[in-house]
Amino acid sequence: MARKKDESVKERSADELFKDFKEVSITEFFRKNKAHLGYSGKLRSLTTVIHELVTNSLDACEEAGILPDIEVTLKQMGSEHYRFTCRDNGPGIPEQHISNVFGKMLAGTKFHRSVQLRGQQGIGVAGVTLFSQMTTGKPVRIITSTGNGKVHDIQLMVDVTKNRADILEDNVISQKWRGTEIQGELKGVLFNLGERSPYEYIRRSAIANPHLKITFVDPEGRKSVFDRTSKEIPKPPKEMKPHPKGMDTDELINRAKRSQSRRVSSFLETEFSRISKSKADEIQGMVNFDLKKNPRKMAWAEAEEITKAFEEIDFMAPPVEGLRPIGEEQIDKAVLKILKPEFSSVLTRSPTVYGGGVPFQVEVAIAYGGNSGRGNSDDGGRAEIMRFANRTPLLFDTGACAINQAVQSVDWKRYDIRDFDNSPVTIFVNLVSVHVPYTSAGKQSVSSEDELVKEIRMALMDVGRRFHRYHSRMRREIEKEARMNTLIKYSSELAAAVSKLARKDEEKLTKSLQTLITKKLKIEYKALESEDKK
Amino acid sequence: MARKKDESVKERSADELFKDFKEVSITEFFRKNKAHLGYSGKLRSLTTVIHELVTNSLDACEEAGILPDIEVTLKQMGSEHYRFTCRDNGPGIPEQHISNVFGKMLAGTKFHRSVQLRGQQGIGVAGVTLFSQMTTGKPVRIITSTGNGKVHDIQLMVDVTKNRADILEDNVISQKWRGTEIQGELKGVLFNLGERSPYEYIRRSAIANPHLKITFVDPEGRKSVFDRTSKEIPKPPKEMKPHPKGMDTDELINRAKRSQSRRVSSFLETEFSRISKSKADEIQGMVNFDLKKNPRKMAWAEAEEITKAFEEIDFMAPPVEGLRPIGEEQIDKAVLKILKPEFSSVLTRSPTVYGGGVPFQVEVAIAYGGNSGRGNSDDGGRAEIMRFANRTPLLFDTGACAINQAVQSVDWKRYDIRDFDNSPVTIFVNLVSVHVPYTSAGKQSVSSEDELVKEIRMALMDVGRRFHRYHSRMRREIEKEARMNTLIKYSSELAAAVSKLARKDEEKLTKSLQTLITKKLKIEYKALESEDKK
Repeated sequence: MARKKDESVKERSADELFKDFKEVSITEFFRKNKAHLGYSGKLRSLTTVIHELVTNSLDACEEAGILPDIEVTLKQMGSEHYRFTCRDNGPGIPEQHISNVFGKMLAGTKFHRSVQLRGQQGIGVAGVTLFSQMTTGKPVRIITSTGNGKVHDIQLMVDVTKNRADILEDNVISQKWRGTEIQGELKGVLFNLGERSPYEYIRRSAIANPHLKITFVDPEGRKSVFDRTSKEIPKPPKEMKPHPKGMDTDELINRAKRSQSRRVSSFLETEFSRISKSKADEIQGMVNFDLKKNPRKMAWAEAEEITKAFEEIDFMAPPVEGLRPIGEEQIDKAVLKILKPEFSSVLTRSPTVYGGGVPFQVEVAIAYGGNSGRGNSDDGGRAEIMRFANRTPLLFDTGACAINQAVQSVDWKRYDIRDFDNSPVTIFVNLVSVHVPYTSAGKQSVSSEDELVKEIRMALMDVGRRFHRYHSRMRREIEKEARMNTLIKYSSELAAAVSKLARKDEEKLTKSLQTLITKKLKIEYKALESEDKK
Repeated sequence: MARKKDESVKERSADELFKDFKEVSITEFFRKNKAHLGYSGKLRSLTTVIHELVTNSLDACEEAGILPDIEVTLKQMGSEHYRFTCRDNGPGIPEQHISNVFGKMLAGTKFHRSVQLRGQQGIGVAGVTLFSQMTTGKPVRIITSTGNGKVHDIQLMVDVTKNRADILEDNVISQKWRGTEIQGELKGVLFNLGERSPYEYIRRSAIANPHLKITFVDPEGRKSVFDRTSKEIPKPPKEMKPHPKGMDTDELINRAKRSQSRRVSSFLETEFSRISKSKADEIQGMVNFDLKKNPRKMAWAEAEEITKAFEEIDFMAPPVEGLRPIGEEQIDKAVLKILKPEFSSVLTRSPTVYGGGVPFQVEVAIAYGGNSGRGNSDDGGRAEIMRFANRTPLLFDTGACAINQAVQSVDWKRYDIRDFDNSPVTIFVNLVSVHVPYTSAGKQSVSSEDELVKEIRMALMDVGRRFHRYHSRMRREIEKEARMNTLIKYSSELAAAVSKLARKDEEKLTKSLQTLITKKLKIEYKALESEDKK
């Protein structure tokens, strides 16, 4: 017993426990929790690198109004050891920002703006630098120029404890070129051509970005060129004002504090979409304080009265200009080109908002038959769900994603797809928003906010109904043909019998009987089809 | 055409694009991306708050060697508006650390230590303060004392742009008490008693922490007391040295840089587990530089030689002392008490390591029949998977979790569980590690590192085999009984017939026939069972 007592647990004081209290840098945090950024597993880590680089190049080109031309190369250096290069024709990076773009986390041009871009966190590319350095101990190389005749050729490494990058080398070359190239090495990663590979990531990027030309040279030296199918540069994303619907009090206060307006009323009118003078008057009638008040002095309870009024008042839907869907025509082109389906249907819904007044919009497509579905996949079912957020392919963390949840929530049997998982069907969903609520810094899964799931579901049910109509018609066509064939078969026998009885020309009789049958059936089916449309 | 040209996209320069380049604070980042912390959905947000508070209290008590006694109260204040209180008998928080614990992210005592605790990120509780403030505009209240006779009663709010907390009020009361209480309000959240509710979180915490007494008063005023089933205080977690297996070069360099040792050899011997003098000599024989070198000057290539040597050399498995499994006996007690299963089996595997030399250990249990499974769940199947990481229940993001993947990867049919999803079965898995690789800051899903999935799978297959043996025996028992009954039924008829023919006593004949049958069958089944054990 005595021995047991010695082994028993001694209490320790709070002071003793807190002697190690420390703060860490965000870089150090992600170094230790690299799975948060998508760096887990050999294949996923490599796909994540490609994802971050392509996303960044695309955003830069579109913001600058340039038709993107991107070249990605992966070269094998040894076992689980690769070298990556990503070169774009984008606007380049001004000298003073290079080290921050590639080496500082939570820094960027996108965070504070309510603008639809692929990146929104200010973490991704700095994460690539960190991961490359963590697996190889080597710097990344950046070659960039804004087109001013000077090309910077830089080597940089992240200082993990300080969340900043140290430039080890900076060579300036005089050359007329504009764009950015990043090169680096990775260890402990693997390439393949599977469903979640860098290749598939690039292929899907091409599908969702018809204006993109992207070239990929894989480690075997195979070159794939995905040429653009459209030369139209998407309009640069526009900063969008928040919409009053769904606005929360915290965000309202936050914006009020940063506002330059002298009155709450003018703050609301200028900094929100769809709040006119008359709407502001309506709000005034519903709150217990004077909207002439200085917005920077608005109290929480007052802001709460406003958000409550927002909920009760009808506002116009958010404007479409700030959101950049791919477009029904472009999706249809892309889908038809690749999947050659028996049936396809595309739908872009009108913009609406989710919590916090964030505008979003949903585009969906369904393709059935042809090369739709996943083909001979090992993963079980044939149905394929292609998820995109602001045209960025989402390949991982499917289970928790709002898009996947919406697809699963649809009762496909109602639309004549009896065994959805095993049907030759491809579902395409693109979520367009100025802020996509990802579930983690790895950005592969959309948080299942009610409004998002509902909108996606509604859109899917719509294309589901279209498939149902097509399928019923197809079934009827088949039935009609069968019936016609039967009748026509008997018509010649009937004609032979009648000709014997009535002594009429058998051939003539057969013909007129067949004409009769065809006419009758056409009328019948027309009636059915017009009923269908009701 | 002219008009179209006017509308066409103008190129913008890099300088123009970068004029908004900014850095944000980590608090601001999580404010905008609150889903990363688990704040998405009305129910999940509430469960996340309870999760963070209970986790923190448990860690504090265990580190201090105190038997935890925690009281959680939720009170409804209005529609989707609740007040929470969490009070513990822990060590309390020293005055100078209070604001950092509750208001600074990426700060804590746990980050740099390789020690098994529930919290490890230094984000959770500050996230509660942030979420409470974001939904109500109000500060949280902290009442804490280290038992020094002074109780601090503090109101604090987070300064979002600066990642620090401002103390609004600090009242010091003279009172002899030790512990911490946190109170705050939440809006836009919902309580229920479902599978992912605060109630279920607390219930599962009690299952996995037999030494915990936890009281929960729900918004309806119902009080649930989960009393401790063990008075043994778990030994405080011990800092563990990393294990050479799986150690990566980056981590090795990082540790070498911080080392006080004068030589690489002594650095390896003192700062790693299972590296003896003779192992260090073995390493020396495999690398091309002198291990007498200053560890702070070790180059990447040299460190890489060492990690390669680590891979080739055999080391003892990591020591068990640093890891704190719940223990087979305790799990069995908890499982039996709650589920009253027909069959259950518990298994704790030996410690091993995953990538980066991080020691971990797996505990699993299977329960079948009785109240096992999810009962009449709306969610479809009956099988229930209870996931834990360091005794913390994981209720969300099931799909992507390594534990779930391991469960799904087992071919349960081989173990006589034909339709796993619809069987009355509960699978319990606790992953024990000094660093759990979560997929996001919300800590609900374990990244699917190969080593983790493999270990969990092996453990599950083991208990699966045990179930299989039990089930075969059960089936044989049933067959045996049926056979015996048949034979005995015929024995009396046979006896009657024989007695007539041989003129013997019918009753006597029946008895001796029955004795014969019973004896014969017993021998047969003994033989089968001993075969079973082979």
